[in-house]
Amino acid sequence: MVEGIGASSGIAMGKAFVIPTWEWDFPEKLIDVTDLAYEFERLYDGIRHSKDEIELIKQEFVSVLGEEQTQIFDAHLAILEDPIFMNEVQGIMQRQYKAAEVAVKEAIDKFVGMFDLLDDGYMKERALDIKDVGNRLLKHLLGALEETLPPKDQPYILVAKELIPSQMVHLDVSLALGLVTMLGGKTSHVAIMARAMGVPYVLGLEGKLQTPIQNGDYLIIDGDEGVVYVNPADAVIEKYKARKETWKAVQEQLQKLAHLPTRTEDGRQMHLAANISSVKELELVMKNGASGVGLFRTEFLYMDRSSFPEEEEQFAVYREVAERLGGKPVVIRTLDVGGDKHLDYLALPEEENPSLGYRAIRIMLDRTDLFKTQLRAILRASHYGSVKILYPMISSLDELRRANEVLEEAKKELADEGTPFRSDIEVGIMIELPAAVMISDLLAQKVDFFSIGTNDLVQYVLAVDRMNETVAHLYDPFHPSVLRMLKITADHAHKHGTHISVCGELAGDVRALPIWIALGITDLSMSVQSILKVKNSLLQSRHSDGEKIWEELAGCASSAEVVTVLTKYLETDIADQSGRTRPACGFS
Amino acid sequence: MVEGIGASSGIAMGKAFVIPTWEWDFPEKLIDVTDLAYEFERLYDGIRHSKDEIELIKQEFVSVLGEEQTQIFDAHLAILEDPIFMNEVQGIMQRQYKAAEVAVKEAIDKFVGMFDLLDDGYMKERALDIKDVGNRLLKHLLGALEETLPPKDQPYILVAKELIPSQMVHLDVSLALGLVTMLGGKTSHVAIMARAMGVPYVLGLEGKLQTPIQNGDYLIIDGDEGVVYVNPADAVIEKYKARKETWKAVQEQLQKLAHLPTRTEDGRQMHLAANISSVKELELVMKNGASGVGLFRTEFLYMDRSSFPEEEEQFAVYREVAERLGGKPVVIRTLDVGGDKHLDYLALPEEENPSLGYRAIRIMLDRTDLFKTQLRAILRASHYGSVKILYPMISSLDELRRANEVLEEAKKELADEGTPFRSDIEVGIMIELPAAVMISDLLAQKVDFFSIGTNDLVQYVLAVDRMNETVAHLYDPFHPSVLRMLKITADHAHKHGTHISVCGELAGDVRALPIWIALGITDLSMSVQSILKVKNSLLQSRHSDGEKIWEELAGCASSAEVVTVLTKYLETDIADQSGRTRPACGFS
Repeated sequence: MVEGIGASSGIAMGKAFVIPTWEWDFPEKLIDVTDLAYEFERLYDGIRHSKDEIELIKQEFVSVLGEEQTQIFDAHLAILEDPIFMNEVQGIMQRQYKAAEVAVKEAIDKFVGMFDLLDDGYMKERALDIKDVGNRLLKHLLGALEETLPPKDQPYILVAKELIPSQMVHLDVSLALGLVTMLGGKTSHVAIMARAMGVPYVLGLEGKLQTPIQNGDYLIIDGDEGVVYVNPADAVIEKYKARKETWKAVQEQLQKLAHLPTRTEDGRQMHLAANISSVKELELVMKNGASGVGLFRTEFLYMDRSSFPEEEEQFAVYREVAERLGGKPVVIRTLDVGGDKHLDYLALPEEENPSLGYRAIRIMLDRTDLFKTQLRAILRASHYGSVKILYPMISSLDELRRANEVLEEAKKELADEGTPFRSDIEVGIMIELPAAVMISDLLAQKVDFFSIGTNDLVQYVLAVDRMNETVAHLYDPFHPSVLRMLKITADHAHKHGTHISVCGELAGDVRALPIWIALGITDLSMSVQSILKVKNSLLQSRHSDGEKIWEELAGCASSAEVVTVLTKYLETDIADQSGRTRPACGFS
Repeated sequence: MVEGIGASSGIAMGKAFVIPTWEWDFPEKLIDVTDLAYEFERLYDGIRHSKDEIELIKQEFVSVLGEEQTQIFDAHLAILEDPIFMNEVQGIMQRQYKAAEVAVKEAIDKFVGMFDLLDDGYMKERALDIKDVGNRLLKHLLGALEETLPPKDQPYILVAKELIPSQMVHLDVSLALGLVTMLGGKTSHVAIMARAMGVPYVLGLEGKLQTPIQNGDYLIIDGDEGVVYVNPADAVIEKYKARKETWKAVQEQLQKLAHLPTRTEDGRQMHLAANISSVKELELVMKNGASGVGLFRTEFLYMDRSSFPEEEEQFAVYREVAERLGGKPVVIRTLDVGGDKHLDYLALPEEENPSLGYRAIRIMLDRTDLFKTQLRAILRASHYGSVKILYPMISSLDELRRANEVLEEAKKELADEGTPFRSDIEVGIMIELPAAVMISDLLAQKVDFFSIGTNDLVQYVLAVDRMNETVAHLYDPFHPSVLRMLKITADHAHKHGTHISVCGELAGDVRALPIWIALGITDLSMSVQSILKVKNSLLQSRHSDGEKIWEELAGCASSAEVVTVLTKYLETDIADQSGRTRPACGFS
């Protein structure tokens, strides 16, 4: 049994498929100067084979996933043609008379080391690409030929040193039972995608395994406890089979709630919508009886590609979501990159504090070309369903006004072209900056709805980057200051008749439900996996307790006191691990 | 005339003293293998000479500045003995048969490049050190012997590619008329120190000079306009002489205000204290009639050295400040490192968003050993004057309680030892997190005073890193959300009888004065250079306007509207460039 970090809940049992990391260990072979020509021949041969292989994999994926999702392979091909990388390899061979594989390994180590040094998610991903390609080349130089694609006919638990989002996109959910990686973080995009796809995931095993996991090893992974069993004893297998049965039974019980009306015990209608990042999640959205999509994060549409998606492509996706929801609303948030989210093809400045920097609407108001393209695509989709627009990171009336100006331009263009769209499309803003909270009375009068992004709001209110392990313990959504900010926002929204919902992680945290009842917030949007758990509690809550709850919350001087009050009002009748109050998934 | 960035106001005229940057340009000289021994001899000779020279400079400074301030030279000596650096140099010579100076230059470029790549202020400073030492070594290898110390008998304008804080410490203010650097930032420590020392400073000339400034060039620098004239025509000199006269006249007029009572026109007493970083600034504090020191930033005591200052050393400094203020209060803020402030000898984690990370009280509550040492030193100094303690970055009652526990321990230890201290020393907190504002009613009941740190507060409320040029235009202290936060804090402080002052840059910004009157805040602490300007306006303001001003401010929906209201209430009778509402210096 190995302890790691649980990154996506659930239990998976099955045979390991290990993505080889090609961490080669070979002697520093030197060559004779007379062999140099032959050695170069070997190098070029290896490059040629690697390119052929990448092309092959690419073709295979194109047929399944379409052209867009396979652009990552073009990036890999480009590395093999990169003059700086190749110069380095050739230089080591020529000057130091090292064998081709030794030179390739040294060059990879150097570049990866340099990129890794830069404490920057984007560069680290580039380092991963170089490692990936470099290792493929090494494999050819050393003559090893390993299977690199998971089986297509049987289920497996995917094991890797690390995974990147583009690999997740290729994952066949019907076969991938679970994920295990040595590296990675709970808040990485891969972890978010795993949770969204409902695939159990344990990470952080680096240095904890006595022997590496082998292809075909029997694994049990427990995404709730964050543990992995490698070839466990029968007793453990039996125990987990029983647990899995219980878990399944609970899921089935919860599943029965999916199509009940979403009402508190005393009859107050609420709406539990889903946060999604891709069309892929819609099936689960419908299955869990979500009231719609309360937050469609469009970032993933822009990721793992080499250029901005065109209007047509965006329109196709937004339209598909709108249509598949069959009249239920979808709130589409305009592009929120910057901060910890980068695009390969959008150069952003190096920033000391990216979370306090150039991101989201701040970029879009400078790049109105991109902004208008996205708004046009959303507007066009609005003809095919119930579509709303959400601007992220708004801090002032001025920013809102400027964003709306671009929207008006887009509307005018479409009208002139005769393209159909809903001219009265609802427009809302994320309330995720303390500034927006403080002027929410002014903002409420200018928008159709608020969506509170608790993740960023808590981060700014407490000045704590929750991705930063050193201070993560200070990241506290139940801090009284956060409650008071939520109260201000809700009061202003109610006063001005502005619709209000919550879409941060807190919305999917069962413990927080009494807060929403206290604040009179009836719309929540959360990870699709949290919907039924929250609904379970909601069905047993009483809307009429609201005032009493707020009275008690308002008197709390610490988050410990807040949690005590919340616990008192919290009921869950499906009272086992499904009722567990794990933070929900998603980032906002 | 060259346009740069004004980093410290005022006009300076005089001859340039250029700190050589030794940016050598020499051919890639190769040596014969038989010369290798001789070449190594040259290298070792150069190292020996460089070390002798550094020792000499160190000795010279020790006599003037004491042992502590010269530790930077030990760091430089250490680099010349660093095995990694020297291995690199020797490796290049041995393997590639390059001459010693070529190898040294390549090694410098490599290390500096690597350190510079890391987008980290601390590493960048280490890169500067390596450049400095490496260039000194190059100088010896190439046989050039340039003057590197400014003249000791005549005034000069210091010109350099870049400056580091330790160089500022060595600056003789009576001779340094002004500073010009090619690189650097307005919010760098060097710029802050220049403003605190009242030395005009223009930076950011990189790439703007057609020919480099030479030793002895006649310069005019205008720190307000951010321009530098190199060997200007007589007419320009005359113009600036006249301007300087006016400036001096204004300063003299302002100086006359220094010892007037600090009262509004209608007789309300206010207190204008100074923000300081070192004992060096006390003279100006007294000269400008400050009511005391409202913020003593102790970070500088901990900087440019190799280990934490001992209790005795800290005590000596705090005591000196307390005694020299002769009964006027000094508010000593406990160590606020992390974020953009690093100590060479305190390893902090690499952080993606240091401003939202491990800093200030968050570090001190983990390192209670350091914290208690500082608190003991402050307590001991409290026996010799009016000393108060200020905790930075407090976000909760729990943090405050834990800080006070350490304080109580320190008090108990001192009492047991029979060391005298004020047992009823006043304890306050910085209000610089939105969280602290939101629970300021609870905090007000547990402390003696609040000190509002507007710099960080604005940064977190708006989620804008003001050091980040891309978003700096969004950093807006007059945003209505900020005003409302100030209002909440002031109301809570007044209600609970808690003393309140403001110590961020906004306190020294003349334009903000009507805000303080509106909020009933009578204590401000600011850069010593802003005190008389603010006092000038204050003497003409009416405390009785407060309510009316707030009524108007409360109705503002944008910062433009706020500024309009403020301007209406702002009076300055010394109405030229001294009345200009430049943001004051200092960071909090």
